[in-house]
Amino acid sequence: MIAPKSGTRTKSKGSLLRSKKKLLASVTQPFPNSHKIHVDGKQPGVRVALREVEQTPTRDFQGNLIANPPIRIYDASGPYTDPAVKIDIRKGLAPLRQQWIDQRADTETYLGRPVHPRDNGYLTATHAEYASQQERGRLEEFPGLQRQPLRAKSGGNVTQMHYAKRGIITPEMEYIAIRENLGRELPSSRGEWPTDAGRDFQHPGQAFGARLPKIITPEFVRDEVAAGRAIIPANVNHPESEPMIIGRNFRVKINSNIGNSAVASSIEEEVEKMAWSIRWGADTVMDLSTGKNIHATREWIIRNSPVPIGTVPIYQALEKVGGRAEELTWELYRDTLIEQAEQGVDYFTIHAGVLLRYVPLTAKRVCGIVSRGGSILAKWCLAHHQENFLYTHFEEICEIMKAYDVSFSLGDGLRPGAGADANDEAQLGELYTLGELTKVAWKHECQVMIEGPGHVPMQLIKENMDLELKHCHEAPFYTLGPLTTDIAPGYDHITSAIGAAMIGWYGCAMLCYVTPKEHLGLPNKNDVRDGVIAYKIAAHAADVAKGFPHAAERDNALSKARFEFRWEDQFNLGLDPQRAREFHDATLPQEGAKQAHFCSMCGPHFCSMKITEDVRKYAAEKGLEEQKALEAGMQAKAEEFKKTGAELYTKAE
Amino acid sequence: MIAPKSGTRTKSKGSLLRSKKKLLASVTQPFPNSHKIHVDGKQPGVRVALREVEQTPTRDFQGNLIANPPIRIYDASGPYTDPAVKIDIRKGLAPLRQQWIDQRADTETYLGRPVHPRDNGYLTATHAEYASQQERGRLEEFPGLQRQPLRAKSGGNVTQMHYAKRGIITPEMEYIAIRENLGRELPSSRGEWPTDAGRDFQHPGQAFGARLPKIITPEFVRDEVAAGRAIIPANVNHPESEPMIIGRNFRVKINSNIGNSAVASSIEEEVEKMAWSIRWGADTVMDLSTGKNIHATREWIIRNSPVPIGTVPIYQALEKVGGRAEELTWELYRDTLIEQAEQGVDYFTIHAGVLLRYVPLTAKRVCGIVSRGGSILAKWCLAHHQENFLYTHFEEICEIMKAYDVSFSLGDGLRPGAGADANDEAQLGELYTLGELTKVAWKHECQVMIEGPGHVPMQLIKENMDLELKHCHEAPFYTLGPLTTDIAPGYDHITSAIGAAMIGWYGCAMLCYVTPKEHLGLPNKNDVRDGVIAYKIAAHAADVAKGFPHAAERDNALSKARFEFRWEDQFNLGLDPQRAREFHDATLPQEGAKQAHFCSMCGPHFCSMKITEDVRKYAAEKGLEEQKALEAGMQAKAEEFKKTGAELYTKAE
Repeated sequence: MIAPKSGTRTKSKGSLLRSKKKLLASVTQPFPNSHKIHVDGKQPGVRVALREVEQTPTRDFQGNLIANPPIRIYDASGPYTDPAVKIDIRKGLAPLRQQWIDQRADTETYLGRPVHPRDNGYLTATHAEYASQQERGRLEEFPGLQRQPLRAKSGGNVTQMHYAKRGIITPEMEYIAIRENLGRELPSSRGEWPTDAGRDFQHPGQAFGARLPKIITPEFVRDEVAAGRAIIPANVNHPESEPMIIGRNFRVKINSNIGNSAVASSIEEEVEKMAWSIRWGADTVMDLSTGKNIHATREWIIRNSPVPIGTVPIYQALEKVGGRAEELTWELYRDTLIEQAEQGVDYFTIHAGVLLRYVPLTAKRVCGIVSRGGSILAKWCLAHHQENFLYTHFEEICEIMKAYDVSFSLGDGLRPGAGADANDEAQLGELYTLGELTKVAWKHECQVMIEGPGHVPMQLIKENMDLELKHCHEAPFYTLGPLTTDIAPGYDHITSAIGAAMIGWYGCAMLCYVTPKEHLGLPNKNDVRDGVIAYKIAAHAADVAKGFPHAAERDNALSKARFEFRWEDQFNLGLDPQRAREFHDATLPQEGAKQAHFCSMCGPHFCSMKITEDVRKYAAEKGLEEQKALEAGMQAKAEEFKKTGAELYTKAE
Repeated sequence: MIAPKSGTRTKSKGSLLRSKKKLLASVTQPFPNSHKIHVDGKQPGVRVALREVEQTPTRDFQGNLIANPPIRIYDASGPYTDPAVKIDIRKGLAPLRQQWIDQRADTETYLGRPVHPRDNGYLTATHAEYASQQERGRLEEFPGLQRQPLRAKSGGNVTQMHYAKRGIITPEMEYIAIRENLGRELPSSRGEWPTDAGRDFQHPGQAFGARLPKIITPEFVRDEVAAGRAIIPANVNHPESEPMIIGRNFRVKINSNIGNSAVASSIEEEVEKMAWSIRWGADTVMDLSTGKNIHATREWIIRNSPVPIGTVPIYQALEKVGGRAEELTWELYRDTLIEQAEQGVDYFTIHAGVLLRYVPLTAKRVCGIVSRGGSILAKWCLAHHQENFLYTHFEEICEIMKAYDVSFSLGDGLRPGAGADANDEAQLGELYTLGELTKVAWKHECQVMIEGPGHVPMQLIKENMDLELKHCHEAPFYTLGPLTTDIAPGYDHITSAIGAAMIGWYGCAMLCYVTPKEHLGLPNKNDVRDGVIAYKIAAHAADVAKGFPHAAERDNALSKARFEFRWEDQFNLGLDPQRAREFHDATLPQEGAKQAHFCSMCGPHFCSMKITEDVRKYAAEKGLEEQKALEAGMQAKAEEFKKTGAELYTKAE
């Protein structure tokens, strides 16, 4: 390896600028006919960003225009879709939560851990020299951050759960309440929130004390976090994040994975993928990078991310030992946790439930161990014939988590990789252990969610959810899919969206997306979009099925627009306005067709919506209660209708 | 309009030949590493076509090759994927069922109804002349058929239900039994089928007497048809069809819609769409054409279709009256039924449940009436202020259906077109009426299935299924989706695959597909493929969830192939081998990568499946029961493993 010449550096800077420009073009376009709105809370600095889609008016039978209200949408896309914000990925986003963190006065800055060459995957002397050259050349380093890392003051705890258990409503909690309500319920001028008696919600998680309120109040947010039923992933070193919550009594969330690998990808692409993921609706993003420049990639992503970032620290730890699982040590892993916590990672997947005794239970499976983290730890356990060091050091991990407020995502290292392996001894054994560990983490007032499968046929999905709630004490569940059949490589966003919608309805709090490339290759931009949208569908279908407050408003508005042939509104209210428009225009490209009271499916002479509109028009014109009219059996009226209103088809055949 | 010159005709003939050639290329390619097999039954001429996918062997740790059995797949694609069959769309397919129909000796040939210009949508004198010119030029006429139409001998009944109720096992029933069993269970040399005690099946339809057998015997097929729980759509004038069954105790089936319209499409395209649909797995195809040349299009499709063809006769009837719903008459409709029955349509959607009194119940809906057939009849009812003529003439319709064995698909003209309208009074009122009509049809020993929605949020899906079973006396349910949310135009194959999988599991017998273009435009070839595959996923996920015999074999084989890095087998066992391969090759195009024991997601150094394989290898090499080994706590073994088996990562970093 040869250190880059200055010419190379210049060129790289140029390519960064180019990539920035490209990024701006593809991810910063506001959605059509949409604008950002900001709703203020009562705590200082609580200013919640939402999206509002304007609608065109309805034209009634007399030609009058009747306004349709704008529709509010929960918006994960952050400042990228706000034309008022100048995006500069070299500076990163504004630190929205900084003042809140500072005002709590329970953290301290410190020098922080120096970045080692091996943090970026450079292991040999040559590599280190190269990396060192690169750092001098500022080639890969994130240029904008001037902050030192924060951590809890000695012996302190800065988790949202810690505050919640003390009755404190943090600004994060108020932000979340407004966000979940779409800003429709607000504190009064006296600063009081509407009271809410709550309501029973009959989903299968009900047995475990679920209560879906009519109004998500800050108190409700606090209580759910205090009870461990929800988490707010919010590392004190990621002040750029917009607060969000993961819990089954809130909107179902989705996660998108990004990451380079030994085979493909680059830093700029990863940042762009993050912004692209949240544009389509990803609520959190996991950076699963495994190749070179892991540390630098992560820095770029976090500084530019308005959503919580999760990682699987064992991936980076493994890179640091050259891929040799048996050389992993607790010390090295611990150092990696601190490295990532200082950068601002909001949740860590930690496979502490892969116990030595569970590993052989996987040997007879169709697909053995398919979790990367799970298999790394299984290998370590067998090699050392010792218990998983994440399990034996779990309380030490808790100490780190609470110093930064990194949430646990307790990994399902033994999740089934085939329908045939679902709900087996290995999977459930690990789940019970995760339940034990949840209790330990909660003792430290650390926030916890539980990862789940994977590949699960439909008839076994509910059992997964119920067992998780029971054995993990109602900690939020975070599942990958599940995929309901194994026979559709190339379409696993669909096999899994089915399972994801169902488990979301049953009470799963967050759904990890699957792209069409699952099992086959690395997703490109279009795959990420397809995967995120499939999962927004699943999550939203679950919200609607649960009767979550305001969830069905968007469905109803879109359906009304569809019925009234307000094509533009139908496109704009959808999850992907651009694709809807393209699909429409593929058959009827003329601009006039988007005002037309018919569509390409049936043609102008034969449209059921048109006919229904005429049925209504008839009823309205005659000034009759239709049912009465019909009961009276007015043959005369029928004749009249034939002569007047029935002439719909004015164009000659 | 000017009659075409002979030059035009020649050109059109040329374009037919070209389209035939194109058709052969895109729909007749056999699936990779697959071949047709044929399994004989005990009745003459029962020779069931299935697909078998060959697998490559597994290479064990010693390098030995262990054979993997070929996997059988239920195959709707007919002779198109059989290289031994010469496809000539101008001749049509061989009449597989002709000898069975003839041997029953209960039908007679007759002259048949003459084809009128208006059957193809030509209403005016000019149009008629043009059409007549065309017929003389044989431009659009199907050239191959020499048969006269068949119908039951006077007063007779040729429905499969009629035979079943008399204890007769038709060749069609035996064909179906073998097909549903994938040819795994066969009559003994003495011609006796294995006995089957059946087994209880705990799905929510259980309350209505569902019994899923371990072996689908011909007796079981007969009994289900006799009980009205299943139908075999098999018009005596469509002998080209391969027998299949629709009922909840059989494999869940899917339907694909094709059709021209006033705006786009051509005859050749429609035939190709049919062949394309069944290639990807459509079990039946509905021809929903509404524009010109409806009769001719249908003839081309039926003569070339190995799957049952359904239609909505009111669409053609409406064309015959120039699109003026109020001019529809029973006589014209009746004539259309006979026209289509003579051509061989296997099931008719008949909206006989749209009663006058239900129509006003739709006026307050978000989306009114969205069924085309429903709105046509609603309009007719209001215009005449009379009861729906399909309802008042229902017994006369039965007389026609039983003379040809056309199955009823009782249409849900008042299905909800928005989640907000689901399970409302209008929808359920119509459902109860369909239940009454089912009893009437059964009195005539006509076969019946019931159409269902539409747009239904997840929490209301099961109610739909349960109410249908209850009020329609367990007649098979055939639903469109349902779509579980309205907010994703452009992705409604996914919003609806979720609902389809669920209702399939709950007991729905057939799922009508939805393409990504739903609500937006006419599907192209790729949309049809996406829609059919989304629905194959839903149907198969339901079969697996129900524990249907042999259903999970394909999942398990594919998962085993995946685990063993048999990439080619993984592709070939999937629903879409071509796309799976393309997706894989997008990241790792080299041929060697398809033998590689890693994939692009994790790269060569970091593969969980590789690690699991090594865990197994370790256990196998040491000749130990792993659990015992672990319980013994063999530190020495662990050391040994570190020195030998643990060196997986041989490539330098």
